[in-house]
Amino acid sequence: MDRSAEFRRSKAQFLGKADLSRKGSVDEDVVELVQLLNTRDQFFTTSSCAGRILLLDGIVALKKANGDAILKFEPFILHVQCRQLKDAQLLHSAAVASGFRNSGITVGKKGKTMMAVRSTHSLEVPLSHNGKLMVTEEYIDFLLNIANQKMEENKKRIERFYNCLQHALERETVTNSHPKIKEKNNSSYTHKKKRTPEKTCGKCITDENDEEPEHDDDDPGISVNIFPEEY
Amino acid sequence: MDRSAEFRRSKAQFLGKADLSRKGSVDEDVVELVQLLNTRDQFFTTSSCAGRILLLDGIVALKKANGDAILKFEPFILHVQCRQLKDAQLLHSAAVASGFRNSGITVGKKGKTMMAVRSTHSLEVPLSHNGKLMVTEEYIDFLLNIANQKMEENKKRIERFYNCLQHALERETVTNSHPKIKEKNNSSYTHKKKRTPEKTCGKCITDENDEEPEHDDDDPGISVNIFPEEY
Repeated sequence: MDRSAEFRRSKAQFLGKADLSRKGSVDEDVVELVQLLNTRDQFFTTSSCAGRILLLDGIVALKKANGDAILKFEPFILHVQCRQLKDAQLLHSAAVASGFRNSGITVGKKGKTMMAVRSTHSLEVPLSHNGKLMVTEEYIDFLLNIANQKMEENKKRIERFYNCLQHALERETVTNSHPKIKEKNNSSYTHKKKRTPEKTCGKCITDENDEEPEHDDDDPGISVNIFPEEY
Repeated sequence: MDRSAEFRRSKAQFLGKADLSRKGSVDEDVVELVQLLNTRDQFFTTSSCAGRILLLDGIVALKKANGDAILKFEPFILHVQCRQLKDAQLLHSAAVASGFRNSGITVGKKGKTMMAVRSTHSLEVPLSHNGKLMVTEEYIDFLLNIANQKMEENKKRIERFYNCLQHALERETVTNSHPKIKEKNNSSYTHKKKRTPEKTCGKCITDENDEEPEHDDDDPGISVNIFPEEY
C-alpha cells in the first residue's frame, strides 16, 4: 500500500472510532476548526482541547500533588496527523502566525507525521499546602478573573488560527489547480485570490517568529536565576 | 552548494558570531549538552536557557503586564538546527524520552530544520494587582520553595536528556560504522554496545508518549470549563 492510501486508511479507522476522551465529544469552540481539518484529505485530528481552567484538588490529586491544591489555566491544544511533511509545515506556519508559538512537528520512525498546536500562555498557581489554604478568597477571585481573561484571549487565537488556516488551504488549492482555473476564468480569479490574504487573515501576527525564542520574551522581566531557599 | 555543505557553512557562521543573549554566555547547567551537540556534524545549537525563576515587576513590565507583578518558573529550553530531518527525529526521541514532552520540529520553506526542546513544567503566579500585593510573605516563601523544587527537577531532566542523547548518538555511530567494527573486533563489541542502553540511559522515561496527550494529564484534577466571573 502506498503512503497516501495508508494515510487514508488510518484516517478512516481513527475517525470511525468512538471519542474516548472523558468528555466524549469535541469542545464547542474548536468544532469548526476540527471539521475544517478533517474535511481535507491531508489531515485528521487525533485530539483537541479548546482550553480549560482546572482546580487540582488536594483530595483527588493526593498521590501526585502531595495534598496541595493548584489552580491551572491550560490553553488550546490540538494534535493533527498529516499526510506529508509539507502538510505539517503549512499547519505549523498558520499556527505560529496565529500566536501558537510552541507548536511543533513530530515525525515517527515509520514516517508518521504529527503536528501539535501549542500556546505559550499559562497560569499555574498553588493554592494550599498540606490542606492549608495559603491565599485569601479575594486573591482567588482575582485569579479567576485573570484565568477568564486568558480564556478569552485563547478563544481569539483559535479564531485567528481558523482564519489563517482557511486562507492557507484556499491558497494551496488555488495554487494546485491554477492552470485549470486560468483556463476557465481568465486571470481575474487569480487576482481576486491574491487579494484575499489581507481580508481573511488580517488578524495573523506575522511579526512573531518561533524559530529562536529563548523563552516567551514578551515579558521584559527581571531574571533571577536562583532565589535563596530562605527568602 | 549541496545541503550538507550549506549546513556546514551556516554552522560555522552561527557559532562564529558573538553570543547576543543578555547574559552573553551559555548557562552552566547546559554547557556540556550544548558542547555535545556542537561537536557533532549534524547539529548546532542556536539558543538555550537552563531554566529560570523570574519576577516580572509591575514597574518594569508596566506596559505589558498592566502594573501587575508575576512570579514565573520557566524550564529548560533549547533550539538546535539539524542537518537532516532524521537528525531532528533522533533529538526529538531523546527529548521526549527524557520527559521534555512539548518538544517539536520546525521545517522552514527552504528546508531549514529546527528542533525545540520544551518541557510541560511551569509555574506562573500573579502576585500583585495595580501595585497592591495580593498575597502574604509566607505564601511567597512557599512559592519560592516550589519554584526551587521545579528547578531541581528540571536539572535532573537536563542530565537525563544528556545521557539519552549521548547514548543515541553512540548507537548511531556504532550502527553507521558497524561493518568495520565487526571486521576488527568480532561480534563482542556489538554485543557490548547492545548492553549499554540500560546503563547510560537508565533514567529515560520510556513509557511517556508525546503523540496524543490532550494535556499534560499527569494531574487527575477536576476540570472546570468556565468559572463564573463572580466566584
